[in-house]
Amino acid sequence: MIPYAKMTADELSAIKNDLKQTFSIYAEKGKKLIMTRGIPSEDQLALCDGLLTCLSNEDYKTANGNDCRNYGGIDGIPEMKIIFADLLDVTPEEVIVFGNSSLALMFDIVSANMSHGTIDGKPWGTQGKIKFLCPSPGYDRHFTICNYFDIEMITVPIYPTGPDMDKIENMISNDPMIKGIWCVPKFSNPTGIVYSDETIKRFANLKPAASDFRIFWDNAYFIHDLNKTKTNISDIIHLCETSGNPNMVYVFSSFSKISFAGASVACVAASVSNCNYIRQHLSARTIGPDKLNQLRHVRFFENADGVLALMEKHAEILRPKFKLVSDTFRDELGELEIAQWTTPQGGYFISFDSLNGCAKRIVELCAKAGVALTPAGATFPNGKDPLDCNIRIAPTYPPLTELKEALEIFCTAVKLASLEKLSGETFPV
Amino acid sequence: MIPYAKMTADELSAIKNDLKQTFSIYAEKGKKLIMTRGIPSEDQLALCDGLLTCLSNEDYKTANGNDCRNYGGIDGIPEMKIIFADLLDVTPEEVIVFGNSSLALMFDIVSANMSHGTIDGKPWGTQGKIKFLCPSPGYDRHFTICNYFDIEMITVPIYPTGPDMDKIENMISNDPMIKGIWCVPKFSNPTGIVYSDETIKRFANLKPAASDFRIFWDNAYFIHDLNKTKTNISDIIHLCETSGNPNMVYVFSSFSKISFAGASVACVAASVSNCNYIRQHLSARTIGPDKLNQLRHVRFFENADGVLALMEKHAEILRPKFKLVSDTFRDELGELEIAQWTTPQGGYFISFDSLNGCAKRIVELCAKAGVALTPAGATFPNGKDPLDCNIRIAPTYPPLTELKEALEIFCTAVKLASLEKLSGETFPV
Repeated sequence: MIPYAKMTADELSAIKNDLKQTFSIYAEKGKKLIMTRGIPSEDQLALCDGLLTCLSNEDYKTANGNDCRNYGGIDGIPEMKIIFADLLDVTPEEVIVFGNSSLALMFDIVSANMSHGTIDGKPWGTQGKIKFLCPSPGYDRHFTICNYFDIEMITVPIYPTGPDMDKIENMISNDPMIKGIWCVPKFSNPTGIVYSDETIKRFANLKPAASDFRIFWDNAYFIHDLNKTKTNISDIIHLCETSGNPNMVYVFSSFSKISFAGASVACVAASVSNCNYIRQHLSARTIGPDKLNQLRHVRFFENADGVLALMEKHAEILRPKFKLVSDTFRDELGELEIAQWTTPQGGYFISFDSLNGCAKRIVELCAKAGVALTPAGATFPNGKDPLDCNIRIAPTYPPLTELKEALEIFCTAVKLASLEKLSGETFPV
Repeated sequence: MIPYAKMTADELSAIKNDLKQTFSIYAEKGKKLIMTRGIPSEDQLALCDGLLTCLSNEDYKTANGNDCRNYGGIDGIPEMKIIFADLLDVTPEEVIVFGNSSLALMFDIVSANMSHGTIDGKPWGTQGKIKFLCPSPGYDRHFTICNYFDIEMITVPIYPTGPDMDKIENMISNDPMIKGIWCVPKFSNPTGIVYSDETIKRFANLKPAASDFRIFWDNAYFIHDLNKTKTNISDIIHLCETSGNPNMVYVFSSFSKISFAGASVACVAASVSNCNYIRQHLSARTIGPDKLNQLRHVRFFENADGVLALMEKHAEILRPKFKLVSDTFRDELGELEIAQWTTPQGGYFISFDSLNGCAKRIVELCAKAGVALTPAGATFPNGKDPLDCNIRIAPTYPPLTELKEALEIFCTAVKLASLEKLSGETFPV
């Protein structure tokens, strides 16, 4: 392979004609291949089928005798708090287990801070147009929450060691209207990068101009390693405590990609003061979360070790998929100099950068050939990728054979879009 | 028995001495009897233990093939929508099944209306100090939501046919800052009264000064009849449609007192336009509700008839408890002219009115003797009963023998507090 940019017009034209033909064959097949979101596959879900049957009509109480079939308790059953605490390396008093969605917890906390303020300030909603920093490419659902509450989003670049800390420190210490930042510190969505110890230390030592500034630390992939060698990140909660900023961070996590997506358990971990405050807000909204589903998780996993053991099985299923993406990209695109991509050691995504101005076109071409991808731009605030180059690859859901087909189509689309870009001539589809 | 008010000072003094002695004996026993909230009893919960085991590792999909173990679907599985729709006499398109708590749905909709407005107006939060009408005595959790969002509450009297409609019509048609009203139309919390057809018709024909006025119709006890003869109330959604006010009402309900309290399924029913709008808001917050728990309910109950059949069993358990309360009050307090109470045909509560100025004292005395009651005043906005006379009796949770003890203590406390009131002399406890 030689780089497209170094080929002659005739060579490019020949390749383009080949690609057009290949593409037409794909399009005619009318496949439906879905790679839109980070969804566990059926064989991953089957790992936890024991959850469906692990309670019985003699087993519905916590160790302290609470009947999980009845009302009572706003912040989770003790056993489930312990499992999250052990996995996140915090104390159970620093954990609230609530509901089936960590995203909902993030939304509820932003909402509460908008209407009532944090423990350190007036309601965000009464302070004028507030801002959140958004390391990007990032998670579109975070940006949706900002959009919902009309919070201005400021894009911050993200590097292999984490977001651009120079920029972040500078902006946060000078602008009191910056109230938050979205972080996915481990196997970041979609780049898969891991924040370095240095980055996390700098986060914990931020000196925000706003006393009510908060880090939304979405540790969604906290134990989602692909390899036997595990990646550990620094404990932000206790670093913030040490730095004299104990209430600056909320940590979120869930079992959405451990047990059943959408039918699992979610948590927020934070300082005891933050937890007390969050509990108050949750109590105005509801009597409490579904404790039976928490108990199911406790019975099925038993403890943190049980969870980690299951994660090995997830990794076995996911490893070949991530390898297939990596191998296919290398073989198909490796030396063409039309793309770059990440090779994460965990998480659910691979971040793919095409030539500038090609991402939307690639997603469009893929759609025509039956491959559904995350919309181009979704990984940036307001759905607008300034360079139109980033695409989030979500390889987890399709079986390997389908993933292979999808990747072939994807690579063909990448090449076609790149050739269109280089030649200035669009291929009608 | 002759009324206390017609006794001589000596007679009253003798009775008081007897009561003091009785009371001291109770207090010494140090019982712990709980009648604070409308909580199902253990034998009621056991009716649904089949829910704990009704799914299997071969049964986790909806009829249309959706895997309930995975992401997808914001508004509930089709089968569960149909069950709610059949029970509420609406169409599945008018139903959103979401989460385990109808209270949370009410909170989320008030919250969304505060920050974004209804489909018929600007955000409530930007319109100045808005108001809700609160028929009282009512449900304290409704008032908590108003308090949370700093919404002014206006107390409206409630009669055996429903709230004071003359007052409501007058206020709502003249004051555009009135944006909502809380209603529990069937077996109202705590009075147990049922809104008459005439009342509901007047609700549907309200002519609010505010285009974005909404009725929060909390139909929590919609099929919670105690007797074989069922009480049916008019269908507010379609009456509103007929009156040209299709978006004026949100109907809420749940299985909290049908299956497992806190681990059941909740819904909101409304016009299709309202449902579309609610779906949008829910989608910003989360990927979706726990579909597996909905599927459990579908498998266990099968259909609306299955639910109604189970409600007969609940009624069998609850009937003797409500009868015991009614009989005890009649026998102990019947002719003393120191109290009035309701005799509901369904629901979870009995509303008790003491002599004015005695409710707090009765609750205090009960606490000293080991009986925990809902705080006096809780049934009014801001926890303030202007006459200090209303107490909510929640007889469902204790077994009959414990309920009997609790009622004896309660009646003793009522008599003591009344004698204190009549004599102006307080008994030290």
